[in-house]
Amino acid sequence: MDIKTYMQELGRRARAASRFMAAAGTAQKNAALYAIAAELDLGRAKLQQANADDLRAGENSGLEAALMDRLELTPARIDSMLEGLQQVATLTDPIGEISELAFRPSGIQVGKMRVPLGVIGIIYESRPNVTIDAASLCIKSGNASILRGGSEALHSNQAIAAAISAGLKQANLPAAAVQVLETIDRAAVGELITMPEYVDVIVPRGGKGLIEISRDAKVAVIKHLDGVCHVYIDAHADFDKAERIAVNSKTQRYGTCNTLETLLIDEQVASEMLPRLADVYAQKGVELRGCEQTIALLPNVNAASEADWHAEYLAPILAVKIVSGLDAAIEHINRYGSLHTDSIVTENYTHAQRFLREVDSSSVLVNVSTRFADGFEYGLGAEIGISTDKIHARGPVGLEGLTSQKYIVLGDGQIRE
Amino acid sequence: MDIKTYMQELGRRARAASRFMAAAGTAQKNAALYAIAAELDLGRAKLQQANADDLRAGENSGLEAALMDRLELTPARIDSMLEGLQQVATLTDPIGEISELAFRPSGIQVGKMRVPLGVIGIIYESRPNVTIDAASLCIKSGNASILRGGSEALHSNQAIAAAISAGLKQANLPAAAVQVLETIDRAAVGELITMPEYVDVIVPRGGKGLIEISRDAKVAVIKHLDGVCHVYIDAHADFDKAERIAVNSKTQRYGTCNTLETLLIDEQVASEMLPRLADVYAQKGVELRGCEQTIALLPNVNAASEADWHAEYLAPILAVKIVSGLDAAIEHINRYGSLHTDSIVTENYTHAQRFLREVDSSSVLVNVSTRFADGFEYGLGAEIGISTDKIHARGPVGLEGLTSQKYIVLGDGQIRE
Repeated sequence: MDIKTYMQELGRRARAASRFMAAAGTAQKNAALYAIAAELDLGRAKLQQANADDLRAGENSGLEAALMDRLELTPARIDSMLEGLQQVATLTDPIGEISELAFRPSGIQVGKMRVPLGVIGIIYESRPNVTIDAASLCIKSGNASILRGGSEALHSNQAIAAAISAGLKQANLPAAAVQVLETIDRAAVGELITMPEYVDVIVPRGGKGLIEISRDAKVAVIKHLDGVCHVYIDAHADFDKAERIAVNSKTQRYGTCNTLETLLIDEQVASEMLPRLADVYAQKGVELRGCEQTIALLPNVNAASEADWHAEYLAPILAVKIVSGLDAAIEHINRYGSLHTDSIVTENYTHAQRFLREVDSSSVLVNVSTRFADGFEYGLGAEIGISTDKIHARGPVGLEGLTSQKYIVLGDGQIRE
Repeated sequence: MDIKTYMQELGRRARAASRFMAAAGTAQKNAALYAIAAELDLGRAKLQQANADDLRAGENSGLEAALMDRLELTPARIDSMLEGLQQVATLTDPIGEISELAFRPSGIQVGKMRVPLGVIGIIYESRPNVTIDAASLCIKSGNASILRGGSEALHSNQAIAAAISAGLKQANLPAAAVQVLETIDRAAVGELITMPEYVDVIVPRGGKGLIEISRDAKVAVIKHLDGVCHVYIDAHADFDKAERIAVNSKTQRYGTCNTLETLLIDEQVASEMLPRLADVYAQKGVELRGCEQTIALLPNVNAASEADWHAEYLAPILAVKIVSGLDAAIEHINRYGSLHTDSIVTENYTHAQRFLREVDSSSVLVNVSTRFADGFEYGLGAEIGISTDKIHARGPVGLEGLTSQKYIVLGDGQIRE
């Protein structure tokens, strides 16, 4: 079977399964999640064997250490997959929720009902636990899904897929509700993103390379571009909060998309705050790259180039810019940011309000570390990614981001005159 | 200036204007809407002269009668443009609305703020009043817009654009908040839909030809495909309601996207209902095209082909199919429908609930004419189109559909440990 025929067949099955999933009750979907967890638990030995195959292949092909680490399914990681499934089972089912149902002058009642999107294609990289995260969110939100994991994780993902399939069947849900690609042929991705008749939305999860899929897609894509996140220390900042937030946002973890990449600071407080911050960053081993004014205060700092304002370092490097005030900070963020996450540190009410309103990012924060921009911290229970798109879902995407609302109208024989 | 440079310049100005619009207050936006209405009223003579130029050119180029009619700006139509502007001014401003703001265990408060999309490109056909509808909704929702009207209406649209521009300036808003293309070069559309740096979303409004723009777009598109709408008369229907709804849905207006195109009827009631309906349709001059079972009951009816189940006739033609029950009706609609508007006529509680839940359309109705699927009837105050997309907005798109929600987080110095 050629790859196009294979993908069309997957698509056809997913579309059919999506009808069942949309109508499935909460108890039935939860039963599937618990059954999948039980299957994974029972099949630990098989799963670890499959994972060992992937690790061996990764070693042979010289996979880099960071990717090898992400690929490994330790017993603790399997435990956390089981916990994840159980946690999604405890989340409120968004499907079928009716809101805003109100009478109109014509006598009809108009409201909105939350419904699944249909079929979701998810494309991700080496971490095999994403297979469980993605599958569980799609099941709970009543969607069918087609998952394309990293080629390095093929055996692990197939073992996980078998557990998912068995769990779905135990709950009398169609096994095709979650289909994990059995091929590593990249042409399969090309097909997946160009089958609007079978796939309603694509979620690329992972590096920027994956995200660029959206350029060729003929299906809606929930994009997650890079995270060029800012902290702006306002003239009216509390200095202790400012230090805590600026340091935590940058150094708590370097490799995450909600990590601080450019620090902005009001010129009125720069001479007091910057040397203090520079000391802490130096202790933590963070390299600073500054604007001219920054270098005037901190002569040892290297000059930032235009590219630094655009940079998502994902590393212990921080761009620093002194700005003339709130307007300049907002302008810088809206120009160089990636619509991801930006935080102001201020005690000034009006500055906080203006920052919240005028910064055009998916998460806008006041007096909080950027590291909080995350589905778990926001109370979504789980997340499938962070959207930097402006339509549909913005910010962390949980169950609700995998749904939409249709209009429902209840009447008693009304016609239009 | 070549067309690419021209469009890039428009885009750059729109992006800059969108920052002002996002921060503009409700009173200021309303002032602009009232000022535009006053300008249009003052400039009636000029507007009608410009419209006369378009009508003359249309006559010379042999524009068909229906399009000539849509092109004409009668005094009554100008009045209704003024009323439209005033009505949008009275709508609640969606921007800045904060919802679901709640504390998380970490002590941060997480909520959502409704914000404009940014820059909206709207592409439409001959009716020049759409220029005012689109501009007023974009202004009220804090968006900048780039409007591309039909080439037949170029002079009328330019006259309207002058009034919009003057009104925006009077309210101290940037004139570039609404830009109407001054060219009829189709290459301009090609540029508009491929400038993601300047345009956040495209709304093609009008015929299916326009909609197919979405195939080449590199920007998100709020699509409005055809309206293949169904009425399903259930075995438990009230016959009087069924007749009223089936007749009104088809015959109240033939050319609208929420007009009934395929009537489904349960076999248990077909022999009683269908001849009765056929009489009324015959009186109204509606041609029926039926399935085999329909023809067995109504021998004079022509046979429907596969193409009829897909057809959006926009004409006094109706496809009729007898189905074995609710499941078959839902299956038919989900297979042949266009995710637009579908209505069940039933007194059966469970059938109504299942239809609402399982029919995958943007508007699902019970005991109501399909003709109610419309922004005004739903209480949106105005609409920019009806989306048959599954992500972002489904169904009639009003002010809210031109916005999205970003996350806001309020803290007191919280950091992640």
